[in-house]
Amino acid sequence: MADSAHPFDRALRLETVDTDTVRGTTSPQWANMVGPFGGITAAALLRAVESHPDRIGDPLALTVNFAAPIADGEFDICLRAARTNRSNQHWMLELRQGDEVKTTATALFGLHRDTWADDESRPPSAPAPEDVAAGRFVDAIVWAKRYDMRFTDGPVPTGAVDPSTSSTTTLWVRDAEGRRLDFAALASLSDVFFPRIFLRRGRFVPAGTISLTTYFHATSDEIDAIGDDFLLASAHANRFSRGYFDQSAHLWSRAGQLLASTHQLVYFKD
Amino acid sequence: MADSAHPFDRALRLETVDTDTVRGTTSPQWANMVGPFGGITAAALLRAVESHPDRIGDPLALTVNFAAPIADGEFDICLRAARTNRSNQHWMLELRQGDEVKTTATALFGLHRDTWADDESRPPSAPAPEDVAAGRFVDAIVWAKRYDMRFTDGPVPTGAVDPSTSSTTTLWVRDAEGRRLDFAALASLSDVFFPRIFLRRGRFVPAGTISLTTYFHATSDEIDAIGDDFLLASAHANRFSRGYFDQSAHLWSRAGQLLASTHQLVYFKD
Repeated sequence: MADSAHPFDRALRLETVDTDTVRGTTSPQWANMVGPFGGITAAALLRAVESHPDRIGDPLALTVNFAAPIADGEFDICLRAARTNRSNQHWMLELRQGDEVKTTATALFGLHRDTWADDESRPPSAPAPEDVAAGRFVDAIVWAKRYDMRFTDGPVPTGAVDPSTSSTTTLWVRDAEGRRLDFAALASLSDVFFPRIFLRRGRFVPAGTISLTTYFHATSDEIDAIGDDFLLASAHANRFSRGYFDQSAHLWSRAGQLLASTHQLVYFKD
Repeated sequence: MADSAHPFDRALRLETVDTDTVRGTTSPQWANMVGPFGGITAAALLRAVESHPDRIGDPLALTVNFAAPIADGEFDICLRAARTNRSNQHWMLELRQGDEVKTTATALFGLHRDTWADDESRPPSAPAPEDVAAGRFVDAIVWAKRYDMRFTDGPVPTGAVDPSTSSTTTLWVRDAEGRRLDFAALASLSDVFFPRIFLRRGRFVPAGTISLTTYFHATSDEIDAIGDDFLLASAHANRFSRGYFDQSAHLWSRAGQLLASTHQLVYFKD
């Protein structure tokens, strides 16, 4: 019988092994060059906390360290609340295959309060997603087919392209099959950007995220209100040096509300 | 006999308890409103990895989660390399007092390679530190006396100040006693900024960092070359919402070289 679940939900199916361990399986639909897309791993780690019986509140911060490639097949996520306070909770996680640690992570969950609020971020100007052609990614990158990406600045360099003086990419992005946004999907989207070094070199360069941190500004109500609409996503690098660069990125709703700030350190060989 | 060591080095003295545990003691000279300055805790965690016999390479990324206030007195840092690869190493750390976890952290260390390089970041324009008066912080904040801070934008609001429309602070900063920069000092400086909400509200607001991530761009040679000179440091917030805001900051050498990118999530009550 065919599995009719959405590929994202299928990739996030986690079976309880014991109180502090859940088991998942990699999905061919989320394959990257080597191992699965980092975003789907981040989402699975977040979901492991979300579905833990001791969890309180919503995701506030998530740091994922990609220590080694995840092989196709089963993986175990071991997680525990290192500290539970009145209004927040600090989690430590490890993703293992056999006796090997493949990914480490920390997650901060917490309750929201009504407070003074202001969105100081300014989304880059971009034409409406309906006026932008669907972007090309790279056929070999399977996970990219899971998203409808419409680049308005700094698209993937395909073929012979001059190196850019800017590492900035801006795109509209949403689930390709119209799955509604949730926290796990936002965690996955925080890794949707191809490596910034591609733009600066005008070509592909071996590169991979080694540490990813996402701050979740959106509440669950705000996320519900977005439904399956496009998000505006923009990323840039700060410094490329001796094999590493950092990326900072932001994800806004169409209305210009900042949903997440996300940062990563990437290794490259060039 | 008086202890003639620099306050920073005193705060980073770690005694080996066993292979995976070191013990430190809080320093009154680094006291914050509640518990020690977050930067000195980040520095102690980094130093714990730096001084571990299995450590390879230099700091690349550090995430520190401030789970609960550290009480005055002794603390234990438990650390282990979750994964060691050919060129990098992933550490997990916990800072404990008794059986309570006060801080969790992950650290990524690694080797640098010669690669294509470019610094895309642009430091804000600022007068030379010699032309800026030493800034006032707040007398009650002891740790702030450890730094020579010269604000060129967005100083600490003292007394009656109008709320600013911008959360940006820029300052020149160096050790007040001329201690030379090293990776641990850079980790500490990554938390040198007062909470951005102070500027937006024009007054003090209860606030505290709950998660801090720093990416180290500088190599040890670059850090050595800086000696005891000022760094230019600039921080801004992106979104304030329901009890939390994020801050992104950068630290440059006087020559305009980006040494570190650092991000944090802060809780506030207002």
